[in-house]
Amino acid sequence: MNVLIVHAHPEPQSFCSAMKDLAVTSLGAAGHAVQCSDLYAMQWNPVATAADFTERSDPDYLVYALEQRHAHARQALAADIASELDKLLWADLLILNFPLYWCSLPAMLKGWVDRVLVSGACYGGRRFYDRGGLVGKRALLSFTLGGQAHMFAGEQAVHGELELLLRPLLRGTLAYVGLGVLPPFAAYHVPYIDAAARQQLLDDYRDYLANLDHLPLLAMPALADFDRLLHPLHNEVPA
Amino acid sequence: MNVLIVHAHPEPQSFCSAMKDLAVTSLGAAGHAVQCSDLYAMQWNPVATAADFTERSDPDYLVYALEQRHAHARQALAADIASELDKLLWADLLILNFPLYWCSLPAMLKGWVDRVLVSGACYGGRRFYDRGGLVGKRALLSFTLGGQAHMFAGEQAVHGELELLLRPLLRGTLAYVGLGVLPPFAAYHVPYIDAAARQQLLDDYRDYLANLDHLPLLAMPALADFDRLLHPLHNEVPA
Repeated sequence: MNVLIVHAHPEPQSFCSAMKDLAVTSLGAAGHAVQCSDLYAMQWNPVATAADFTERSDPDYLVYALEQRHAHARQALAADIASELDKLLWADLLILNFPLYWCSLPAMLKGWVDRVLVSGACYGGRRFYDRGGLVGKRALLSFTLGGQAHMFAGEQAVHGELELLLRPLLRGTLAYVGLGVLPPFAAYHVPYIDAAARQQLLDDYRDYLANLDHLPLLAMPALADFDRLLHPLHNEVPA
Repeated sequence: MNVLIVHAHPEPQSFCSAMKDLAVTSLGAAGHAVQCSDLYAMQWNPVATAADFTERSDPDYLVYALEQRHAHARQALAADIASELDKLLWADLLILNFPLYWCSLPAMLKGWVDRVLVSGACYGGRRFYDRGGLVGKRALLSFTLGGQAHMFAGEQAVHGELELLLRPLLRGTLAYVGLGVLPPFAAYHVPYIDAAARQQLLDDYRDYLANLDHLPLLAMPALADFDRLLHPLHNEVPA
């Protein structure tokens, strides 16, 4: 299996970085090919701009996704984007590894999503969800957060259900481009726990990575359940 | 009323930018004081790093939120952050105006949230939701997107319910820091509609802004419904 880990944490000594290192080591030891994009170390540029395209469909008015599609077809994506997109297309498994900032990705990593999930390559037209450009690959989120598990354990919890909070990522991003979405690995309460509890989390993460093939994918919409204009064919709530 | 509009779009001629201009003009004409942070024009830096603090609590190991708290207390926030935080604390109403990228903020604007919603000033310890640092102020999201309204009209829709998709922003960000959250203004299908339909959207947005005081705030968790460890006191699902 080819694995791409995209990691974004401003502190190289962080527990989150240790999770990234563990994934590199343990997946490598299991015989997988692993590449890692350490966005802070790379000084990745997260800001989508007109400079992302070396040739424009419309040089006078920027519609970002349309220029992505044009530039992908003409091999006119900026070099940093093209390089990351190559890694993504090479990968069978994508791991986004990050500290949860405001229930979402840090801007550094959000800007990888904004710029690298290129229209034309990863989605576009009617190619999304189970018809997305990355169908056949899988993805997972591995992240650290300050909160505790019970604060996200269902809709009655103070922050509601974790998977709902992560919906824009799990469904709106990963599933949207066709990736099979594995259950997220959440490392709770990291700033407040002792070394033994941190070691336990790393052990849990190692086990999780060793057992990926036995984890069920999250249920996601299938376009066959919707008509051509994307109205639902049935009034069932998707799982 | 003091209004801060934080705007992030890579194309100054975009419809999204026209929404920002309309808000500046119409709220100003109604007698409100308006400031606008146009993040692309400002070349805002969205990346959280150690350079965000001119003095560190722990110079050898970066825990971003803890350094925010320390730096806020010591007036040691980087100048660009301090300037935006001043505007935020001045404002009675915060408007985030943006194109929806991956069901969320563009990285440019996510990095404003990451860096400016400073622990110690906006939240921290047990100060969140209805006890958050920005209680008494209100906020709204105004955004453009490619999708159509029916694609987000309830859980049976292809992308599920819009307010659930926006939960990390509406609840996990705006409500978390104590802001009263107004219903979002979504400008659907913008890249695909004609000039008359765009004008109608601008008219709708003008009406929306003129009627803010008559819009009910979204229901959010109240900490009185949870115990000291944030376990729910009742098993009701929050509205």
